[in-house]
Amino acid sequence: MLNYSNLFSEVTKRTKASVIRELLKLTAKPEIISFAGGLPDPKEFPVEDVKKMFDIILNKYSSAALQYGATEGCASLKTALCKWLKDVEDIDVADNQMLITSASQQALDMVARIFINPGDRIIVATPTYLGALQSFQTAGADIKGADSDDDGVIPESLEKCLEQTKEEGKQCKFVYLVPDFQNPTGVTIPQERRLKILETAKKYNTVIVEDSPYRQVRFEGEAPKTFYNLDKGQGNVITLFTFSKIFVPGFRLGYIIANEEVIRKFVVLKQAMDLCSPSILQLATAEYINGGYLEKHIKRVVEVYRKKRTAMLAALEKYMPEGVKWTRPEGGLFLWVTLPKYLDTEKMFPSAIENNVAYVVGSAFYYDGKTKNDMRLNFSYATPEEIDEGIKRLALAVKKNLK
Amino acid sequence: MLNYSNLFSEVTKRTKASVIRELLKLTAKPEIISFAGGLPDPKEFPVEDVKKMFDIILNKYSSAALQYGATEGCASLKTALCKWLKDVEDIDVADNQMLITSASQQALDMVARIFINPGDRIIVATPTYLGALQSFQTAGADIKGADSDDDGVIPESLEKCLEQTKEEGKQCKFVYLVPDFQNPTGVTIPQERRLKILETAKKYNTVIVEDSPYRQVRFEGEAPKTFYNLDKGQGNVITLFTFSKIFVPGFRLGYIIANEEVIRKFVVLKQAMDLCSPSILQLATAEYINGGYLEKHIKRVVEVYRKKRTAMLAALEKYMPEGVKWTRPEGGLFLWVTLPKYLDTEKMFPSAIENNVAYVVGSAFYYDGKTKNDMRLNFSYATPEEIDEGIKRLALAVKKNLK
Repeated sequence: MLNYSNLFSEVTKRTKASVIRELLKLTAKPEIISFAGGLPDPKEFPVEDVKKMFDIILNKYSSAALQYGATEGCASLKTALCKWLKDVEDIDVADNQMLITSASQQALDMVARIFINPGDRIIVATPTYLGALQSFQTAGADIKGADSDDDGVIPESLEKCLEQTKEEGKQCKFVYLVPDFQNPTGVTIPQERRLKILETAKKYNTVIVEDSPYRQVRFEGEAPKTFYNLDKGQGNVITLFTFSKIFVPGFRLGYIIANEEVIRKFVVLKQAMDLCSPSILQLATAEYINGGYLEKHIKRVVEVYRKKRTAMLAALEKYMPEGVKWTRPEGGLFLWVTLPKYLDTEKMFPSAIENNVAYVVGSAFYYDGKTKNDMRLNFSYATPEEIDEGIKRLALAVKKNLK
Repeated sequence: MLNYSNLFSEVTKRTKASVIRELLKLTAKPEIISFAGGLPDPKEFPVEDVKKMFDIILNKYSSAALQYGATEGCASLKTALCKWLKDVEDIDVADNQMLITSASQQALDMVARIFINPGDRIIVATPTYLGALQSFQTAGADIKGADSDDDGVIPESLEKCLEQTKEEGKQCKFVYLVPDFQNPTGVTIPQERRLKILETAKKYNTVIVEDSPYRQVRFEGEAPKTFYNLDKGQGNVITLFTFSKIFVPGFRLGYIIANEEVIRKFVVLKQAMDLCSPSILQLATAEYINGGYLEKHIKRVVEVYRKKRTAMLAALEKYMPEGVKWTRPEGGLFLWVTLPKYLDTEKMFPSAIENNVAYVVGSAFYYDGKTKNDMRLNFSYATPEEIDEGIKRLALAVKKNLK
């Protein structure tokens, strides 16, 4: 047998299996109420409308819907999205400032490849989205974390990280943020803080990568402007959106907006990566937007997830012992529970599974894995009744481990 | 405005736009008969059957068809493919030896990332598929080429390259081959030669990457066994297949088979790259295979492309001046025309476009770009009548440039 150990690359050695995806396999037993994973509620997927869209576009475009497409993305989807961004986000973007991707994860992988040489410094919020950490680690990034509070990343801590990077003679390649209903914490960065962060990034000549999969899933309160909008086309922000949480994840579609020079680099890389994302799914999504379906669907999803979020907050209030804290997100799919400092949610995990409830271990969201007393809870997948029962079980597991 | 030049990575600097895709933009005028590109004939796409498949699977799986899927690929597609490979290719492969990819280009990009560190030696046939060169160059490969003749890559030349690599103290990471109806030349490596190549690869402890998008598009003659089959599960071969040429390219689906250890590395990398390929397209493809549609469709496509190939060979015979040579493929989508040595098909390109005919400049398929007197002609896209007319125009352009 051929021995592959001399053949694998450094990339292969750096690439680690996703904690979440491995964990999901362990929590697949039907008796477990899982707050792990980040799955949207499939009961809300517009199955009949999707069928209709396929009929419409296969009648309209026929075989053209099944041919290779432009690497940049289908023109009709980009046109629909430019209009949508203007209407919904007041973002002005031309179609050469946009690339359609195979959802957010591809966009994150591309960001990593476009900017990171092995050993290059980047800065993330702590904690942050682990799928992003996975892509950045695969690229060999030297990751530093800026601290966060209930308003997301703290500008002063970010500035300290950037200043320290400069003192080390290094250039920070980008600052990665999930500003709206962050994965994992559910917190949103207020507008004033965004302006400070943007100023700081400019001062250190670095770019902000704004990853915003949950932004349109807002239950209450007013949305701060996107970083992209606040930057007013100055090229300091690259923004990633996806249809995974507001339409269906199974289409694997997302999009990047940035200035034209940057998009051009992404397009050329995508040629080498997969040529193009599936035309048929892009055309169906364009039809879904243009027909006004997306807007209605988002309203429905927001309604459902708001109830679930509220159910989870109520259950936490009802069942959790003193000393346990949690965030109160105004939208999104996740909230973040912090236990007393001496508890380790990884060590506690087996007793949760024993109680037939699952979560994601918080340390997975720290680039250095050092903070141990948090957990991420997803509230989009389970029903309100399951949420009540699941939090009850989780609280029992916590109490069992309390000193 | 932010200056990005300090921020872009080495990957970005190495990534070049595809000559073909850039060229296709120039040849989009309707009066041009294009033998450039590698598009399957969209008139043959099974639009009505695709509609039917979507209906079937959305009724059968409902919202599960729209949810995130397993990174490895949908179980039903993998099961269908394991059976298909056994029936059609006599290949024994278990589902943990297979990964579903977003078509061949993603598989090539993954191969590059899994094996190549910047500066690592790999060996390709000369000429070879330019999309592969693009992915390998993006990864920073040090590419050497083994010579080819009308039976594909020459084992002695390959051995010389491998020996030289060894003498330089380097390990060849892999040998990349398109053994069946090669892109660009259309030639197929005979079975005896395959066995020699396999032995040579084993001797130098390297792996053969067998990229075979056209294998099932055979017009005549008997197929040699795949390298994968000839290796008898010894782990010396990684094989890439795709549905782009035998079903539809717009689904962006392909698959890799290899030993379990290697597939595991690919799966973990795909997690970081795009999580999974679209479930709905995978399920529809599984249904298409299981319903016996794929088999019938391939027969139809083979019939159509055989006629077109024959039309192109006849037209070349009829119109081309002496001193011009071409391959006679038994299948696939391409043939390869070699002009007298003093001609340069890149310099000749404007006069072809003036005559309203297009091809791909042969030098794009050489890793060093040094051989100038070839061109690749695609015969799957144009009609037989267009092929006759197009070759007539092309012959005029050639004659105009002959000494």
